[in-house]
Amino acid sequence: MPGLHDVTRGRLLYGGDYNPEQWPPHVWADDVRLMREAGVNLVTVGVFAWAALQPAPDRYTFDWLDTVLDLLHGGGISVALATPTASPPPWLGHRHPDTLPQGPDGIRRLYGSRNQYCPCAPAYRSAALEISDAVAARYARHPALRLWHIGNEYGTVCHCGHCAGRFRGWLRDRYGDLDGLNDAWGTAVWSQRYGDWAEVLPPRRVQYVINPLQDLDYQRFCDDMLLECFTAERDAVRAHNPAVPVTTNFMDLYRHTDGWRWAAAEDLVSLDTYPDPNDPAAAMRAAMSKDVVRSLGGGPWLLAEQSPGAASWRPVATPKRPGLNRLWSMQAVARGADGVLHFQWRASRQGAERFHGAMLPHAGPDSRVFREICALGRELAGLSGVAGTPVSADVAIVLDWDAWRAVELDHLPHAEFRYTDRLTDYYAPLWSDNVTCDFVPGTGALGGYRLVLVPNLYQVSARTAAHLASYVAGGGTLVVGPFSGVTDPSERVYTGGWPGPWQDLLGVRVEEHWPLDAPIAVTSSSLGDFTATMWAEWTEARGAETVAAVAGGTLDGRPAVLRKSFGAGTAWYVATIPAPDAMRRLLRRVCAEAGVAPVLPDLPPGVEAVRRGDLVFLLHHDTGEVEIRRAS
Amino acid sequence: MPGLHDVTRGRLLYGGDYNPEQWPPHVWADDVRLMREAGVNLVTVGVFAWAALQPAPDRYTFDWLDTVLDLLHGGGISVALATPTASPPPWLGHRHPDTLPQGPDGIRRLYGSRNQYCPCAPAYRSAALEISDAVAARYARHPALRLWHIGNEYGTVCHCGHCAGRFRGWLRDRYGDLDGLNDAWGTAVWSQRYGDWAEVLPPRRVQYVINPLQDLDYQRFCDDMLLECFTAERDAVRAHNPAVPVTTNFMDLYRHTDGWRWAAAEDLVSLDTYPDPNDPAAAMRAAMSKDVVRSLGGGPWLLAEQSPGAASWRPVATPKRPGLNRLWSMQAVARGADGVLHFQWRASRQGAERFHGAMLPHAGPDSRVFREICALGRELAGLSGVAGTPVSADVAIVLDWDAWRAVELDHLPHAEFRYTDRLTDYYAPLWSDNVTCDFVPGTGALGGYRLVLVPNLYQVSARTAAHLASYVAGGGTLVVGPFSGVTDPSERVYTGGWPGPWQDLLGVRVEEHWPLDAPIAVTSSSLGDFTATMWAEWTEARGAETVAAVAGGTLDGRPAVLRKSFGAGTAWYVATIPAPDAMRRLLRRVCAEAGVAPVLPDLPPGVEAVRRGDLVFLLHHDTGEVEIRRAS
Amino acid sequence: MPGLHDVTRGRLLYGGDYNPEQWPPHVWADDVRLMREAGVNLVTVGVFAWAALQPAPDRYTFDWLDTVLDLLHGGGISVALATPTASPPPWLGHRHPDTLPQGPDGIRRLYGSRNQYCPCAPAYRSAALEISDAVAARYARHPALRLWHIGNEYGTVCHCGHCAGRFRGWLRDRYGDLDGLNDAWGTAVWSQRYGDWAEVLPPRRVQYVINPLQDLDYQRFCDDMLLECFTAERDAVRAHNPAVPVTTNFMDLYRHTDGWRWAAAEDLVSLDTYPDPNDPAAAMRAAMSKDVVRSLGGGPWLLAEQSPGAASWRPVATPKRPGLNRLWSMQAVARGADGVLHFQWRASRQGAERFHGAMLPHAGPDSRVFREICALGRELAGLSGVAGTPVSADVAIVLDWDAWRAVELDHLPHAEFRYTDRLTDYYAPLWSDNVTCDFVPGTGALGGYRLVLVPNLYQVSARTAAHLASYVAGGGTLVVGPFSGVTDPSERVYTGGWPGPWQDLLGVRVEEHWPLDAPIAVTSSSLGDFTATMWAEWTEARGAETVAAVAGGTLDGRPAVLRKSFGAGTAWYVATIPAPDAMRRLLRRVCAEAGVAPVLPDLPPGVEAVRRGDLVFLLHHDTGEVEIRRAS
Repeated sequence: MPGLHDVTRGRLLYGGDYNPEQWPPHVWADDVRLMREAGVNLVTVGVFAWAALQPAPDRYTFDWLDTVLDLLHGGGISVALATPTASPPPWLGHRHPDTLPQGPDGIRRLYGSRNQYCPCAPAYRSAALEISDAVAARYARHPALRLWHIGNEYGTVCHCGHCAGRFRGWLRDRYGDLDGLNDAWGTAVWSQRYGDWAEVLPPRRVQYVINPLQDLDYQRFCDDMLLECFTAERDAVRAHNPAVPVTTNFMDLYRHTDGWRWAAAEDLVSLDTYPDPNDPAAAMRAAMSKDVVRSLGGGPWLLAEQSPGAASWRPVATPKRPGLNRLWSMQAVARGADGVLHFQWRASRQGAERFHGAMLPHAGPDSRVFREICALGRELAGLSGVAGTPVSADVAIVLDWDAWRAVELDHLPHAEFRYTDRLTDYYAPLWSDNVTCDFVPGTGALGGYRLVLVPNLYQVSARTAAHLASYVAGGGTLVVGPFSGVTDPSERVYTGGWPGPWQDLLGVRVEEHWPLDAPIAVTSSSLGDFTATMWAEWTEARGAETVAAVAGGTLDGRPAVLRKSFGAGTAWYVATIPAPDAMRRLLRRVCAEAGVAPVLPDLPPGVEAVRRGDLVFLLHHDTGEVEIRRAS
Repeated sequence: MPGLHDVTRGRLLYGGDYNPEQWPPHVWADDVRLMREAGVNLVTVGVFAWAALQPAPDRYTFDWLDTVLDLLHGGGISVALATPTASPPPWLGHRHPDTLPQGPDGIRRLYGSRNQYCPCAPAYRSAALEISDAVAARYARHPALRLWHIGNEYGTVCHCGHCAGRFRGWLRDRYGDLDGLNDAWGTAVWSQRYGDWAEVLPPRRVQYVINPLQDLDYQRFCDDMLLECFTAERDAVRAHNPAVPVTTNFMDLYRHTDGWRWAAAEDLVSLDTYPDPNDPAAAMRAAMSKDVVRSLGGGPWLLAEQSPGAASWRPVATPKRPGLNRLWSMQAVARGADGVLHFQWRASRQGAERFHGAMLPHAGPDSRVFREICALGRELAGLSGVAGTPVSADVAIVLDWDAWRAVELDHLPHAEFRYTDRLTDYYAPLWSDNVTCDFVPGTGALGGYRLVLVPNLYQVSARTAAHLASYVAGGGTLVVGPFSGVTDPSERVYTGGWPGPWQDLLGVRVEEHWPLDAPIAVTSSSLGDFTATMWAEWTEARGAETVAAVAGGTLDGRPAVLRKSFGAGTAWYVATIPAPDAMRRLLRRVCAEAGVAPVLPDLPPGVEAVRRGDLVFLLHHDTGEVEIRRAS
Repeated sequence: MPGLHDVTRGRLLYGGDYNPEQWPPHVWADDVRLMREAGVNLVTVGVFAWAALQPAPDRYTFDWLDTVLDLLHGGGISVALATPTASPPPWLGHRHPDTLPQGPDGIRRLYGSRNQYCPCAPAYRSAALEISDAVAARYARHPALRLWHIGNEYGTVCHCGHCAGRFRGWLRDRYGDLDGLNDAWGTAVWSQRYGDWAEVLPPRRVQYVINPLQDLDYQRFCDDMLLECFTAERDAVRAHNPAVPVTTNFMDLYRHTDGWRWAAAEDLVSLDTYPDPNDPAAAMRAAMSKDVVRSLGGGPWLLAEQSPGAASWRPVATPKRPGLNRLWSMQAVARGADGVLHFQWRASRQGAERFHGAMLPHAGPDSRVFREICALGRELAGLSGVAGTPVSADVAIVLDWDAWRAVELDHLPHAEFRYTDRLTDYYAPLWSDNVTCDFVPGTGALGGYRLVLVPNLYQVSARTAAHLASYVAGGGTLVVGPFSGVTDPSERVYTGGWPGPWQDLLGVRVEEHWPLDAPIAVTSSSLGDFTATMWAEWTEARGAETVAAVAGGTLDGRPAVLRKSFGAGTAWYVATIPAPDAMRRLLRRVCAEAGVAPVLPDLPPGVEAVRRGDLVFLLHHDTGEVEIRRAS
């Protein structure tokens, strides 16, 4: 199987999206000259070029792209070539209105923007395959080609009749027959029993709350349909040259596509990441996204998009300050990236993204942005021996898309309970302490980890539950966060107390969830007293030691943090959301007990340390200077 | 006529909604056993069982319900049996899409949730009657049957063509001909004159503000259509056994259904009430709902639904703390309830309400919730002699749905002026002082009351106005709140000053309404100075004594509280919204003058006292202990 | 050409909208009597009378209007007669559903409110022309007629198929062919290239951001369609009597209709203005609206609508305090109004605007409002010699609808950057200092002005840029605000640094726009230090003197206010949004250098001074008293 090493060939990749179709040909040579000046060695071409390549159903115009690829190749610049299927031309929507996606309200979304396709519409599917095949047929052996980039930021959702039809088939595959469907969806509630497959629909507009598993299954189904679109195009291009690896660009932690399943379908994983320069937690969030994508792919990955300046979709689109693009690029490399690409090479003069940052901004080469881009190119070129090397971690965080989607369904106990906030509860203090984390699926291999964190597994299968218990029994340390072990994969609530399958493992029984509208006090002799917010539980220790307990109020005295020896290991349950400083104290204790150490101890605040291969990257996120001495 | 006494047969009812169709048959016996343990004597069955009873248009499946009713009867548990028409099965919407309701935007709301019916659709009407008739035919003589529960929480609104057709007929009945309609609706404004009945429509989506009487009449019409649905089903079940009383469950103060008219169509009234445990004013609001429903029915009533734990539709669905369900249950009994039912018996494992509280929670019988439920059952069983006894009050508050709907129309002077807030302005201080109140319609019998409060009658008919004036003339005391006497029942503004028909009664003329964007100061030698918010008026005393006047600003010196002797009685006008403490001082003075006394004087804060029959209920809403000594 | 002088005939106009069709005939004589008492000499009749005049397609009912006009004439009251086309009768929408406008979602907006017409629908166009012609044919020679009032507050937008068809024609006229369209719209971005005119659509609902020029062009197109509606009706009534002038009523600064183009199509300009009495900046905003409308018409103008009390569409519709209507009326006269009209004469009892203020309020003639109306009528009658006199100004502010619409497109760097806020940044301090301003289009004659202000010209044509540069070269003083000179009229971003065509004129090069999420500090030895908000820029002085510079943060030291001599004049660039007090200091310095003086110096705060003809109006906006002495 081809992979990222076939693209890097041992050196770090550097470049960005290149949209030559937006510029007259005389600009192209200038582009190549400036790319070389900047140290660019890979550009992504053709992402939105469908209409430029196939201006009418029966007409292809490849000449311009021939020229561009030859020019790039002549300049020593490689190409990630896209199947341009994320934005069909107007002629497709006009001739086949059924390819235009419908919202839950039945209203079609038209062309004039992008992403206006129904993933199930046969006319879209065949047109997308046709253009993908045509592109691949022409360029699969072009010497500049190094990578296939399929589609773009998959995420489109539709509720049309095509989708309804495919959804029924998907449900039939999953549940066998209508009895199975009725049983799983709990249609006995509210008289929703289906008597005929033809009655079954996507979750369109309703009077009140939708059936939760209808909602969740539709999320799963939509993900599957998008993955079908991806794999069909992947196979189409592979057929022309199996040696060229295939990827598509993920977005920062994104609920609609299950990263584990998508990564498994790719030859290499790549990420679009847009931290907000105005967000004080941006560096931490960026680190988390990067650790996630490294974990999805199980090794080095490609930063497919970041902005050298502003992200134009932000309400306040502040550019990156000088040095910040370098800093975050180095963070990507430190955390496993083998390449740093940007959206985009040359700032567009027109279109909805004309104010998005670019490597070559509107101001032109005589600009601080372009000068920084050139400096970064030189610096990356000097980092020899990094590409392909691994990042190792002693800690794993369980990341599960089913739990994510389920815990954010409607009418759960706390409407503001967000899965990614729960991940952050655990990730942020470890990041501050320079403890490197991997992410794993609930059934992933855990052998190499001293510590496994489960910030939340609201929905958990018996299999996952057993897998994690066996990890503890074998000597591991596990920390489970609140509102976990509540439902099974069919979103049936576990009865008899929570965390359903883990009461014995964790030595606790939760009778009631207790969402909070105001903070509570928690007392702990070992951790110090602290406050907790948003969430508490009516707990009873059944075998676990109480490390912290609620102080005052209705839940006075109820255990809030519990610890239990189980087999050869240790299991913790955290039944609330401690304030960040308390989480840091708690996780320091857990790490110490589990033998987890930071990359470097005692670093000044704002300094991030990551070990990749033989190198330790030290990244200073604050302004001002710090002095760090090598331990003598 | 049958009534609540036929259900209670002298003892307080206790139980909840029971949805056996959600559970395998082996659970049913366990349910009955646990119900007996809890002291349950009445359960509501079949509310959402349409699809379970009629899985296809031509097929009925009553066996399971036969078994359940026999089991319950065998266990000594009575049944309130529902017509399951609140949630039609998917087959109805699929075969008759015209039964699916349309929003003002014309978009149909589909099945997959509940309530997806157009109250005017002939196919819905006939299917609902058919299933109601079938259920009644089978069970009207079942020995467990004690009560019919029609539909559920009526409130569905639709804007489809069926509704348009019925609306035209409704308008023709009300206004006679198009001239009458044009005159009433004021279609001379903005060129809205109708020349043909076919032009007349529900208030669908428009460019700007809708015609106010078109809006108001449509609210009245929708209420009538729902009431037609109710009465048709009521008559269908009555035909099978006139001895079984009929009810439907009201929601807490709810604008869409006029409680006076609905109560008149029922054999007994029942209430679903869901105070928010996080709301500091929850006990007061709950008391108000209960006093309203007692007043609607004119005597004892049934608490049809409350949650033993959380209400899952709340954004922060905090459960009830220990003792709170008992406390609020006792409040219901104190305020006239002859039974306390819950939604629901056994917590659902599936569906949109799976996190709603239940008598038998997910944790099972070994839980503090179930233990409290059992204790409450025992306690209620011990309250002999309470069922059927009356609650008496010296104070009546006028509650009027037309005024409510009208004062919340668009483009009135203050968009945040809410009718129920105005009720609370008056109810809350009296509740704090343990003065018991009834509610009355504007034309209700007032003979027994020392004091009548009109928090707001923005829209008032000449008849109601005269009725209340004659009450005062005969010696009564009346207090009228702000923005009253403004329009007639066709929403025509009274001219010549306000309160239109009450200027003489109240001795005041209001020239201008003066909504406020900031508080104002009011001065009063007898009440003490206070602040007022949201609303003031350009008043002139014409015969009334000025008790309080605005201090400073544009309205400096204008009377804000006025008092006038009228005939043998006294009439007050409150032209603003005083701060709560000022309202309390004002109402204490009014009560003292009118000879209205609290149930018990000088109780500690947080203690509610209600007299029912021979008993005084003392309800302590705060935590901690209080000592109350019987007057020697 | 007829003009406002034909309406005033030398005296100030006074009156309001009169809707006799809402009242029985016996009220009409009373109206005329009370109008005379109030000094009314002009009323606007028939604005919403379409259905009253043409109750069915084939039937006209003019008798009532004959009577009304004769009565008014008999009372010495002149009439502005409307074409009643702003609100078609229900019969039009019912018979021609295609005249009902569609939103971007395709949902039609129905009758029952007002404005429910598609400006492109042939059936609407012909019906509107027919009724306009019929009204004009009957009344064009009526002796009461003094003015034609076409439609009402034009602003309706539709997205239907008629509009799509006309839009294609409009685009063809503008861009010649599809290549021209594709080039201008930048359809190479996101694969939006059009291959057939039939594919081109209005900006209907899409998945993500719409093409920006598709959006902007549709705004331009909709404006043109409304202007077509206006001119067609104008020509229809003119044909019956060319001596009667024609107007339509503008709204306060309104983005959807380009005031310069509309004013050019009218014989006189008129304004509806509704400042919020609760807004502390209301007087300033009102003054700006009035200066704008005077500038649009190039001389005296007509105040067509203001409320004597509340504006009923406000969420908190507080009335005007005593004296406020007089004060704001005098402000209008001071700033060039030759007449003061109100909406409306007699308060409606019905309809959506029944709580809107009126000259004759619901309370009737015995009211403070009516007494003030009568006093104002007397006072205006006493202001002889004012009508027709000019207001002169040394300062001009550039006002440009293309820049306005463009700078508020989606996905620009700061979502809260509002064009009218930018105007206010400059207008407000000058108003506080009693410096009178005109407004001018970007290519307007500037010879008479000592100072020209460009608060924002985000989009600017080469022609406008050159015109303003030549004004400076010739000795003028120009101040340009931030985010200017960014795009050309096809919304193509200028490259090479900003302000694109003005780098030489202003002596500055902007590399990056720097929207702010928090204030920054700016230091200036001459202006004093200050804070600035929302916006900054990465500037480099290239010939200009730095008057103020950013202090601290990423942009530390970058020029924020620059000044450059250019030719015989001076050009300033303000690259940020200084706090109001700093703007005042800056503009005082600029005015002093440019020789611009206030109307009167050293007035107390809250006193506005305007010179009109030989009079100086002194308007005191605060409560309390001030003493102003004539300079000795």
